Amino acid sequence: MKHLFPIPSWVYDTVIYQIFPDRFFIGKGKTVEDKRHLYEKRGGKIEKWGISPKRSNDGSHVKIFYGGDLWGISEKIEYLKDLGVNAIYLTPIFMAQSNHKYDTMDYFKVDPQFGGLKALKNLINNLHNNNMKLILDGVFNHVGKEHVLFRKALKGSKKYRNMFVFYENHYRGWWGTRSLPELVLEETVVKEYISKILWKYLELGIDGWRLDCGQDLGPEMNRFITAKVKEFSSEKYVVSELWTYPSYWSMVDGIMNYHFRENVISYLNDKNPNCGFYIEKAYKETENIHACWNMLDSHDSERLSTVLRDKFQRKAAVLLQFTYPGVPVIYYGTEIGIDGGNDPECRKTMEWDRKKWDNELREFYKKLIYLRKREPALRYGGFELLSNEPLIFMRKSQMVLDNIIVYVNKNDKEIEMVVNVPDGRILSGTEFVDLLSEEKFYVSGGTLKLYMKGRSFGVLKINNKIVRNYDQYKRIR
Amino acid sequence: MKHLFPIPSWVYDTVIYQIFPDRFFIGKGKTVEDKRHLYEKRGGKIEKWGISPKRSNDGSHVKIFYGGDLWGISEKIEYLKDLGVNAIYLTPIFMAQSNHKYDTMDYFKVDPQFGGLKALKNLINNLHNNNMKLILDGVFNHVGKEHVLFRKALKGSKKYRNMFVFYENHYRGWWGTRSLPELVLEETVVKEYISKILWKYLELGIDGWRLDCGQDLGPEMNRFITAKVKEFSSEKYVVSELWTYPSYWSMVDGIMNYHFRENVISYLNDKNPNCGFYIEKAYKETENIHACWNMLDSHDSERLSTVLRDKFQRKAAVLLQFTYPGVPVIYYGTEIGIDGGNDPECRKTMEWDRKKWDNELREFYKKLIYLRKREPALRYGGFELLSNEPLIFMRKSQMVLDNIIVYVNKNDKEIEMVVNVPDGRILSGTEFVDLLSEEKFYVSGGTLKLYMKGRSFGVLKINNKIVRNYDQYKRIR
Repeated sequence: MKHLFPIPSWVYDTVIYQIFPDRFFIGKGKTVEDKRHLYEKRGGKIEKWGISPKRSNDGSHVKIFYGGDLWGISEKIEYLKDLGVNAIYLTPIFMAQSNHKYDTMDYFKVDPQFGGLKALKNLINNLHNNNMKLILDGVFNHVGKEHVLFRKALKGSKKYRNMFVFYENHYRGWWGTRSLPELVLEETVVKEYISKILWKYLELGIDGWRLDCGQDLGPEMNRFITAKVKEFSSEKYVVSELWTYPSYWSMVDGIMNYHFRENVISYLNDKNPNCGFYIEKAYKETENIHACWNMLDSHDSERLSTVLRDKFQRKAAVLLQFTYPGVPVIYYGTEIGIDGGNDPECRKTMEWDRKKWDNELREFYKKLIYLRKREPALRYGGFELLSNEPLIFMRKSQMVLDNIIVYVNKNDKEIEMVVNVPDGRILSGTEFVDLLSEEKFYVSGGTLKLYMKGRSFGVLKINNKIVRNYDQYKRIR
Repeated sequence: MKHLFPIPSWVYDTVIYQIFPDRFFIGKGKTVEDKRHLYEKRGGKIEKWGISPKRSNDGSHVKIFYGGDLWGISEKIEYLKDLGVNAIYLTPIFMAQSNHKYDTMDYFKVDPQFGGLKALKNLINNLHNNNMKLILDGVFNHVGKEHVLFRKALKGSKKYRNMFVFYENHYRGWWGTRSLPELVLEETVVKEYISKILWKYLELGIDGWRLDCGQDLGPEMNRFITAKVKEFSSEKYVVSELWTYPSYWSMVDGIMNYHFRENVISYLNDKNPNCGFYIEKAYKETENIHACWNMLDSHDSERLSTVLRDKFQRKAAVLLQFTYPGVPVIYYGTEIGIDGGNDPECRKTMEWDRKKWDNELREFYKKLIYLRKREPALRYGGFELLSNEPLIFMRKSQMVLDNIIVYVNKNDKEIEMVVNVPDGRILSGTEFVDLLSEEKFYVSGGTLKLYMKGRSFGVLKINNKIVRNYDQYKRIR
């Protein structure tokens, strides 16, 4: 399917950091105790920073708060800049009952637990002053059962009743859940309502929307919302939550690429011998792949360090996250080694004690973020599979000297092999240097002789040597 | 990139024999002793036929001559006809200091060591009388430091100074070498100079040019030269020396396909598990593949029998050379088993003592040359990979009965397997016969049941049986 809107130009240069606001940092020097009233007056409970969240069978864990807020995020911009990310994506921040806030009460209010509108304005301002972007989470498939208009509809208001589907003694909820009444997205009144929300925050200065439950929205509503956002500005970004094969959803800028995540993790766990073929096919068939999110975990999945406990495997996954076409998205804390199972275990509080960080892992992230920002091929190059196993691919660039070759050898044994360098501009004798290890490899007759240690990976780039004023690339670009 | 010029019609039917003139044969009944003065007066030394050339650290081996000349080649046309080749490519023959003559002194003189202009005219005449073509080597990226115009430029001639790049006390040489000053190909005066050379020899009757250092010439100069040659006649052939992946260079008729060589040799040496995929990709992406040269060695590489000492592997390589799309090029003497390492060891004198020939190998070449001349699919059929390992492919022909299937099983073990026959015109029950061994195989439901012995290869073609006047292909062509 033809991609409908051009990808915003800044998206190619972006590395996103995902934050679950209640769990990142409490601003203004406060503790959760100081904010107790904000939670308890709405039936919530507070918990001490650092205590791991646990699932309760009655779902009451969604009412346990740690106190994080938008002020806190603002105060940690230096941490994000040091890491190298230049955009943040926040899970929902609008007035809602739960800690995750996917059960909206009022889209036009930033939750006071997070600091309210004032904290949002302050955050936008601080981010933009630091050349960083902000993406908010739009939950438009359903609302919470305490939603202002749903309450009115329940009480019989004709004006709002057709925004929902009412049966006798019941109404349609997401996955049948009573707590999450579904909006009737086909209704004009709903479309107008969503449009107003979208524009309100765009006018405040946010840079993009992440659409929750993209598969429930369906292709037409994804298109409608994207068109509405692009009507505001073609430089605003729309990403949809879709746990599908990435092609087909070309009406949005990109999707959250869980297909990439599934492939990479199963590949490194020795359960997916065709990973290379699959991700090449997805690249070829997904016109908007460069705006999709390369994620390895999120608030809806197990943490990377829980699914890949082995450090080599984990680093290989991160390498692929930063070298496959798309926008890398780091889930807060994964860069320092925080672990956790499925929701709510993956929603632990951020660790701010540097002594407890996996600093080697964090340095590895920093190196890859730096390389991605520096290398044009990693930002917008093509993808050509050179070998399925070991996994080797080329990120093909417009300028020949910018081409990048990436390899992952997850086997215990070393491998020596010849691979194709499918670009007729790459000349014989050309030296490729691994940007991580500085190892050197040489081209001969359109092929590259690779030597890969057991359990190793590399990011190779041409090092064009100019010998006594002679440049063999002088007539080739 | 779109191929610019149509491939000369005769190229499809051609098998080329490459000759290094100093090392092939001395004509007119002479010995190198008789020609001693031709070498010694220009600082050269002579050596006896049959003595292996050796590299000297000071490069003086390029001044050792064995006496071969164009008269000698003329006298050996019967040998070439018996082998079955119908074109020869000569490394440079113009006036130059070295035995390889890549350091041109004067492009307008055929070196007297090779018999001068008279010997060239005689050779062209004899070749054409035998329906054979001649391709000369054009070295246009650089000249030798004794080049007539470079000498004048060095002495300060304004007219010729801008043909070269002069620095203070230095000038630009190929790979920084002082002995090979580079021409400034962007200058009109250089373009006109090269044009004159191209046409002078086309007017004498040669059939094509091989362009030395195609990668240094760059895409624009390759295009310029090809256009100049095609301006003379669209039936003249231009091949560029490019040690790259073969696509992209569509401004020339074809390239020397070292990519094919690297793939085949590393495949047979068990270092390239993806060879089939790579040569299929190269076929698909290279519009002018049919005019590229399928070479397994040259004056710039180790000899085939040195890189593949095992006879089965070597024959499998030769089989691929004659069955992959492109023009097979045999480097003189490789057909009788001459070995040798890199330059100058690969430039031994030709062996004329039949008792020292590998006659079985030579017969194998003759058989393959014969098959290539007979089978349309091998000359201009398409290429479809049927199996990467064992390597099996189809040369798809316009006429269904001409289709050819080639297999190479390099493993020690026999393999029985079913392969696709991806042509809907091939009917069930069809018999394929191996043109080498006469083994038979049968088609069922668009698949072929193959039985391949350990270390074996085959070239299979349909044998359409007409039974009591019944021809199942009577309505299918």
